Amino acid sequence: MFTIAIDMMGSDNGPAALAEGIKRYLKEKPDTKVLLFGDKAELKPLFADVEKSRYEIEPTDTVIPMEIKPLEFLRARTSSMYQAILAVKEGKADGVLTAGSTGGFVTGATILLRNIEGVDRAALCTPFPTKKLNVPAVVLDVGANNYNTAEEVYQFALMGRIYHQAVFGSENPSLYLLSNGTEEGKGTEEVVGAYKLLKENKVPGFKGNVEARDALDGTHDILVTPGYAGNIFLKATEGMGKNMNDLIKEAFKHNFFTKIGYLFAHKGFAKMKETMNYRQYGGAILLGINGLAVKAHGNSDPLAFYCALKVVDRMIEKQVVKKVKEAFASASENHD
Amino acid sequence: MFTIAIDMMGSDNGPAALAEGIKRYLKEKPDTKVLLFGDKAELKPLFADVEKSRYEIEPTDTVIPMEIKPLEFLRARTSSMYQAILAVKEGKADGVLTAGSTGGFVTGATILLRNIEGVDRAALCTPFPTKKLNVPAVVLDVGANNYNTAEEVYQFALMGRIYHQAVFGSENPSLYLLSNGTEEGKGTEEVVGAYKLLKENKVPGFKGNVEARDALDGTHDILVTPGYAGNIFLKATEGMGKNMNDLIKEAFKHNFFTKIGYLFAHKGFAKMKETMNYRQYGGAILLGINGLAVKAHGNSDPLAFYCALKVVDRMIEKQVVKKVKEAFASASENHD
Repeated sequence: MFTIAIDMMGSDNGPAALAEGIKRYLKEKPDTKVLLFGDKAELKPLFADVEKSRYEIEPTDTVIPMEIKPLEFLRARTSSMYQAILAVKEGKADGVLTAGSTGGFVTGATILLRNIEGVDRAALCTPFPTKKLNVPAVVLDVGANNYNTAEEVYQFALMGRIYHQAVFGSENPSLYLLSNGTEEGKGTEEVVGAYKLLKENKVPGFKGNVEARDALDGTHDILVTPGYAGNIFLKATEGMGKNMNDLIKEAFKHNFFTKIGYLFAHKGFAKMKETMNYRQYGGAILLGINGLAVKAHGNSDPLAFYCALKVVDRMIEKQVVKKVKEAFASASENHD
Repeated sequence: MFTIAIDMMGSDNGPAALAEGIKRYLKEKPDTKVLLFGDKAELKPLFADVEKSRYEIEPTDTVIPMEIKPLEFLRARTSSMYQAILAVKEGKADGVLTAGSTGGFVTGATILLRNIEGVDRAALCTPFPTKKLNVPAVVLDVGANNYNTAEEVYQFALMGRIYHQAVFGSENPSLYLLSNGTEEGKGTEEVVGAYKLLKENKVPGFKGNVEARDALDGTHDILVTPGYAGNIFLKATEGMGKNMNDLIKEAFKHNFFTKIGYLFAHKGFAKMKETMNYRQYGGAILLGINGLAVKAHGNSDPLAFYCALKVVDRMIEKQVVKKVKEAFASASENHD
């Protein structure tokens, strides 16, 4: 029996879109329950058709804004995001999901749930679609941090490996550092230092550096990077994906003949769409904190939010947080 | 009358591909001459059909490898790249073009030609295709540096502006800092610092930060970034573009009907291909050094190398280097 805390406020499409995804999830997983944090008057009608035992509405009166400083977050105690995260801290929920502010989420989850002992910095970790259908690449950190040390990047690699094994059931996923060249010694100080640590500690699956241009070809399971470069990588990839999709649509709308072409070709493009579907991977987990906290895309539609819930579900089931704790506990024992 | 020095060695496709592009350029521009640096025996037959007065072959006996340290470059005096850059330094050529090692090019051009007075670090600057046909975004630095200070990033912005005005004939191009958020204060220290400098100095066209996901939508003329993040941006964009192109090809090959679809739709996709055509923009200039030095893509085909030559030609004609010198000379006068 799982309970998932959900921040219903602060997403681009409003609570109704999230509610639709939640209801689909609840139907499929009869043994789960959700705690819904947000405006009670707005939420109640959205769940009128759901059995009372499956959900609780926890009324909150504010929403965390897009940008928030740590002190401001601490003062926003009555916000939906604060309360949703708190539910995990207090053991009322097994995990928390939000489609609200990423900055607020990282700040809040870090403050309230705190880092696992031995973890220096938490990392936002998300699977990316690659050009191979159903073969994602797990990338971390995609933006929880602006600066990272070599040791922190090294820890990201260890956490990414645990995540990939737990969520995708892999035995020995391949592990790469994202850098500006493939040779050892390429990249910033922290990337070069992380390379050294990964090599010295013989981390299984570590294969060296990969350049951003080859990273998503479907042959790289885990991509590790300091947060700032990871964020640029994430958004450059998203942006180019969107631009190309727009251009494909334009190409088919070009004239009468291209429109007919679409009628013939659309099945091939449906497969492409499936391959590039970000929504199936559902969200970014903040890895390295004492609790399961997942961020869904701000503009999640019902399907995307449903997928995000499935990801939370899977991570609860696979005990990702516990596995990270164990790994870092044994690592610090080895240090003693 | 222009003279362009060309490093004929070290590209992925060999001198023959470059020669084809060069010959097309020479035909179109009767008032130009090229100095070709490389293996004489290999080059001679490639230019047998070109009038003697249009080219000179300068025999060299080594090739700069992909990775090279500054001291090693200085020792590689007899290499094609060293000699081609030296021709600019010695006034024998108005600019130099290479499709060889990027690392060697940045190192060599910086060592031999040196920074313009007042320029702290040179930047690799290249136009990117955006989703609007014939509306490029100029991005710098895309990888000459691993670390940059706020002042350096600020200088990149000034140089990018001069470049955009000279090469694209713009009056007041819009100027953005690439960052992980649009608000002032987002990004690493050097990005935040550069924002402050751009604002304080009221640099025309400066509009604030842009996130990587919106950067190439065709409404951002100049994108300024520290070199490491710029390199990740460049390669992530290239990589996603390549993946999507591969998937489009697969989509049309999916089955008999999608193949017919291609027959109808190909005109629309031809326009898309033109929009996304990297080759038309031809190369990356190392901005901020005493001389015109351009790097073409390592896997340049004849068309790409021809375009790169046109870019060199245009930058010579528009006196980009002289304009940067003048701007930084008057800036340092203002400082006195």
